[in-house]
Amino acid sequence: MATCDGSEARAALERSVLRRVPPLLTDLYQFTMAYAYWRAGRHNEPAVFELFFRDNPFGGGFSLFAGLSDCLLFLQNFAFSDDDVEYLRSVLPAGTDAAFFSYLKELDCSAVSVSAVPEGSVVFARVCERFRGPRRRLMEMGLRRAQGPDGGLTASRYTYIGGFDLTSNALAGRLFGIPVAGTMAHSYVTSFSSLEEVWPQTLVPCGGGGPIDFICLVKGWLGRVCQLLGSKTSLVREGELAAFLSYAIAYPQNFLPVIDSYSVSCSGLLCFCAVALALCELQYQPLGVRLDSGDLCRQSLEVRRVFKECNKQFSVPQFESLIIVGTNSISEQSLAELNKKENEIDVVGVGTHLVTCTRQPSLGCVYKLIEVRGRPRMKMSEDPEKSTLPGRKSVYRLLDTDGRPQMDLICLSEEAAPKAGVSLTCFPLGLTKTLQTVTPAQVTSLRLDVFTCGQITFPLKSASESRERAQISLQTLHPHHKRLQEPHDYTVALSEQLHSLVSDITKGNSKGSNFLLSN
Amino acid sequence: MATCDGSEARAALERSVLRRVPPLLTDLYQFTMAYAYWRAGRHNEPAVFELFFRDNPFGGGFSLFAGLSDCLLFLQNFAFSDDDVEYLRSVLPAGTDAAFFSYLKELDCSAVSVSAVPEGSVVFARVCERFRGPRRRLMEMGLRRAQGPDGGLTASRYTYIGGFDLTSNALAGRLFGIPVAGTMAHSYVTSFSSLEEVWPQTLVPCGGGGPIDFICLVKGWLGRVCQLLGSKTSLVREGELAAFLSYAIAYPQNFLPVIDSYSVSCSGLLCFCAVALALCELQYQPLGVRLDSGDLCRQSLEVRRVFKECNKQFSVPQFESLIIVGTNSISEQSLAELNKKENEIDVVGVGTHLVTCTRQPSLGCVYKLIEVRGRPRMKMSEDPEKSTLPGRKSVYRLLDTDGRPQMDLICLSEEAAPKAGVSLTCFPLGLTKTLQTVTPAQVTSLRLDVFTCGQITFPLKSASESRERAQISLQTLHPHHKRLQEPHDYTVALSEQLHSLVSDITKGNSKGSNFLLSN
Repeated sequence: MATCDGSEARAALERSVLRRVPPLLTDLYQFTMAYAYWRAGRHNEPAVFELFFRDNPFGGGFSLFAGLSDCLLFLQNFAFSDDDVEYLRSVLPAGTDAAFFSYLKELDCSAVSVSAVPEGSVVFARVCERFRGPRRRLMEMGLRRAQGPDGGLTASRYTYIGGFDLTSNALAGRLFGIPVAGTMAHSYVTSFSSLEEVWPQTLVPCGGGGPIDFICLVKGWLGRVCQLLGSKTSLVREGELAAFLSYAIAYPQNFLPVIDSYSVSCSGLLCFCAVALALCELQYQPLGVRLDSGDLCRQSLEVRRVFKECNKQFSVPQFESLIIVGTNSISEQSLAELNKKENEIDVVGVGTHLVTCTRQPSLGCVYKLIEVRGRPRMKMSEDPEKSTLPGRKSVYRLLDTDGRPQMDLICLSEEAAPKAGVSLTCFPLGLTKTLQTVTPAQVTSLRLDVFTCGQITFPLKSASESRERAQISLQTLHPHHKRLQEPHDYTVALSEQLHSLVSDITKGNSKGSNFLLSN
Repeated sequence: MATCDGSEARAALERSVLRRVPPLLTDLYQFTMAYAYWRAGRHNEPAVFELFFRDNPFGGGFSLFAGLSDCLLFLQNFAFSDDDVEYLRSVLPAGTDAAFFSYLKELDCSAVSVSAVPEGSVVFARVCERFRGPRRRLMEMGLRRAQGPDGGLTASRYTYIGGFDLTSNALAGRLFGIPVAGTMAHSYVTSFSSLEEVWPQTLVPCGGGGPIDFICLVKGWLGRVCQLLGSKTSLVREGELAAFLSYAIAYPQNFLPVIDSYSVSCSGLLCFCAVALALCELQYQPLGVRLDSGDLCRQSLEVRRVFKECNKQFSVPQFESLIIVGTNSISEQSLAELNKKENEIDVVGVGTHLVTCTRQPSLGCVYKLIEVRGRPRMKMSEDPEKSTLPGRKSVYRLLDTDGRPQMDLICLSEEAAPKAGVSLTCFPLGLTKTLQTVTPAQVTSLRLDVFTCGQITFPLKSASESRERAQISLQTLHPHHKRLQEPHDYTVALSEQLHSLVSDITKGNSKGSNFLLSN
C-alpha cells in the first residue's frame, strides 16, 4: 500500500489514468446531432442536461454516488485530434459543411459547468456495501471476469469506495492506493509432486541461529498432527505438502496456503498444521488458510476446531489468531446465507458476482435535456415512466431530529431553499396528487458546483477519501433503508412549483412543448 | 467506415490499443507465487497451462472464440517498468530477496509458446449471434452501460465479430473498422419548441435549383397527411416538427428521426411523413424512423401501414423503402418474442442487455496447470466439477459425412491424430464409463501454434476477418445446436488414453500426485 509520502505521486498517476478517455468514445449520434445543432446555429444556445437513475439497483433502498473524478478529468481534457476529426469526416454524410470540422478542432469544454454531489454520497450507483456482514473483511478479486482491462480497474476502484477492504488487482493497488492481498493458486499446489522438489530445504529461525532442516521438522509435526486427529499420513498428498513447505520457506511470515486442492480433511488441513506448527517452533507467525470449494461454513468450523485442538495439545497460542479466508463464487445471496449460518470465516473474497453485478449488470442511468435558453424542456412518452422532469433543479436532503435523512426534495433552482424548522408541502414521487407536509430539522444542499466554465472547481477526491465519505454517508442512513430484504422506500418528492410545471407542460399549456395550433 | 486504403493504418491503430494492457494488471497472488517459484529455483521449469470453460453461456449449445489478438499483443510486449517493480517491492513481504526484483526487470515472454484456435471459431465465449432473427440488421449501442471505456470497446468489437452489423460507438468504428450508425436523441427533439427555431429555413432540391422555403412546403404536406389519416393537426407538437425540419435541412440524405418523443400516432409519425414527403418532392430519399418505447411490433405495423397509404395516395415509391429501427431495452428474450410476432422492424438496436450480458454476465473461463517438466498435473476437488483434465493435449473436430461437426475429441498431444474413415473409441464427457465408437468422415486439428518462444507466429486477424470466420464456422454447425430453446448438447469426448490417465491420477497410482506413503 502506498505510504503517505507517495500519495501525491499516486494521485498524479491516478489522474493520468482517468484522463485518458478519448473524446471519440461516444455514440455516433452525438456527432450527427452536434452537426444538426451547429447547422441550425444552435450550438451556442445554453442548455441544461441532468443525469439520474430511476430505481435503486438490486431492489435495494439506496445507492452510492461515484465516478465524478473520471468525468471531470475527461471534461477538462476534452479535445479532438486532427485524426479524430478526419475519421468523423469519413463517417458523417458527404456534404457535411467543412466548417463544422474546423469547429470541432477548436472545441473544448470552456463553456461547460457541472454541479454534482460529492463521490461517496448516499443517493438513493453501484452498491457493494451490501456484501458486508458482521466483523469480516472483504476482498475484491474479480479482475479475471471483468469486462476488459478498464472494466477490472473500474470494479476494483468502486468496490473499494463502496466498502471493500482489499483487492487482488495489483495495478489498482498501484494506481488507486487500495490495499492489495493475495494467497496461492491451486496450480502452485499441483505443480509439486514430491518432497524432492522442495528447495532450499532449510529455514533460519525467526530469532536467528543456524539453518534448520525444515522438511525433517515438518515431517515430525505431520506425524504428531495425524496422531492427534486420528488421520492417516498415507492419505496425505506429497505434492501438497511439498508446495506448502516450499511456500513457507519463501514466505515464513506470510504463510496462507489454499488447502482444498485435493481433500481438506485428509490432506490440506494436515499439511497446513504440520508446516504452521514447524513455523511456530521457529518463532514465525503463520497467517491462516484459504478455502475455495465445498461447504465453506462447515469446513471453516472444522478448521477452527482443529486449530484449537492443536493449541490445546501443542501449546501454540499463535494458532488462536489464524485466519480463515473463504472464496467460492460468493454472491450477495450466498454471503447473506453464509452470514446466517454458524461459521468461522474471517475474510471473504468476492469476484465474479461483484465485478459483473450478476443480479443487475447495469444501473440504467439516464441523461436528459431539461432546459434550453432558460426554458424548461420535458420528454413525454407512451411509457409514463420514460417521461422526464423539466427545468434546472436544486436538490435538498431533509434530515429529521435524529440527524437521519428523511426525504430528498427536488425544487426548481429558482426557488428559495427550504429552511430548517419551517414546514413545507411537497408531492412525493410515485404517489400522484398526494400532497405531503414535512418540517425538516436540518437541510443540506446535495449538489455542488464541481466544474465551472471548463475548469474543475472542486477538489478531486482520491479513492480512499471517497470511501471515507461513503462510510459516513451510510452511517446516517436509517437501517431500514439499508437492509437486503424489502428495504423501506426512501421518499423523493417534488416541490409544489416543480409539480405545477410538470402538469402545465403535460397539458400543453406551457411554452415547454406547445401543440401546433395552426399550420 | 474505413476504406480499404486506410486498412493498414487502422490495423496499426487497433494494435496500439490492444497492446497497452500493463503487466501489473493481474492479481497479486501471481507475484507472490512467482516469488515462491523463483525462490525454489523452479522458474525455469517448463510448465503447461490450459484455458477452458465448463458450460456454454445462456444455456446454449455452442460458443464463439475471440480475444486472441489481445492476448498475443500483450504477451509480445510484456515487460515491467522500473516503477512497476518498485511498486511490487513495496507490496511484497519485507525480506523478499532483492534478486527477484532484478529478475522481474529482465523478464519477458521469450520462452512462452501458445497454441489456440483462430478467433471466430465455434468452440462450444461470448455469443451474440443468438440475437439474430430473420433478415434484420443488428446494431450494438451499449456503450453507455458498459463497464468503463475499455468495457465499451470490448463489447463493440466482440459483438461485431459475433455477427452484429453496426455499432453506435464512434471510437470502435475508428479503431476496429466497424460500420457506425446513429440516429437522433430525444433531447434533440425536446430542445426545440417552435418553428421559429428552425434555421436555415430553406433547402435546395437534390437535382439543383433555387432554395425552397422548406417550412412552408412541410406545412402543406402536414395538412394533406392529417387529412389522409383523419388526424388533427392541433395535436401535433410544434417542437417535434421543428426538430425534424431542422434535422432534414442538415441531413436531407440521411433523415431518420426518433418519432416517439411525445406520441407516435398523434404527432411523431405525422411530422415524419410531412417532412419525408417534402424531401421526396425535392428528390431526396428519406431513410426511415426509429421507435424507442412502447409496443414496437404493433407500432411498426401501424407505421408501415401509414407509409403504404402515403405511397398509394401521393405516389411516393420512396416510401416503400423506408426502414423502421426498433430500440427499447431489447434483450435476447424480447427479441425472440418480437421475432415470433408480426412486425415490420428492419433494424434492431441492442444496448444494455448485450454489453452487460444480463442473463449471464460472465463466462467462467478457467486457467489450469496441466503439465510440469513434461509430467501431467491434475487438480482434484471435493466439488467433482472443479477437477481438471491432466496433461498437454490436442483437440480434434470430427466432422460427419455432411461436413457438420459431430464431436470434439480431446487427446494427449503424444497420441497420433485420428484419421478420416477410421473408427475410434472414446469417452464422451458427462457420461462416465460410457465408451462410444465413432468414425469421422473428416478430421480437423483445432489448435494452432500462435505464439512461439515470445513471438507471434500466426497472422493477427482484424475484427472483420474474425467476423467472417465466425459466420463460416456457424454455418457448418447443425441448427439443433444453435437454437435458443433446449439446444442439443454437442459431444466433447476424451480419448481412451487421456481417460486412463485421469483414472490413474485419481486413484493416486500415477506420478501426477502421489500420496505420501511414508513420512
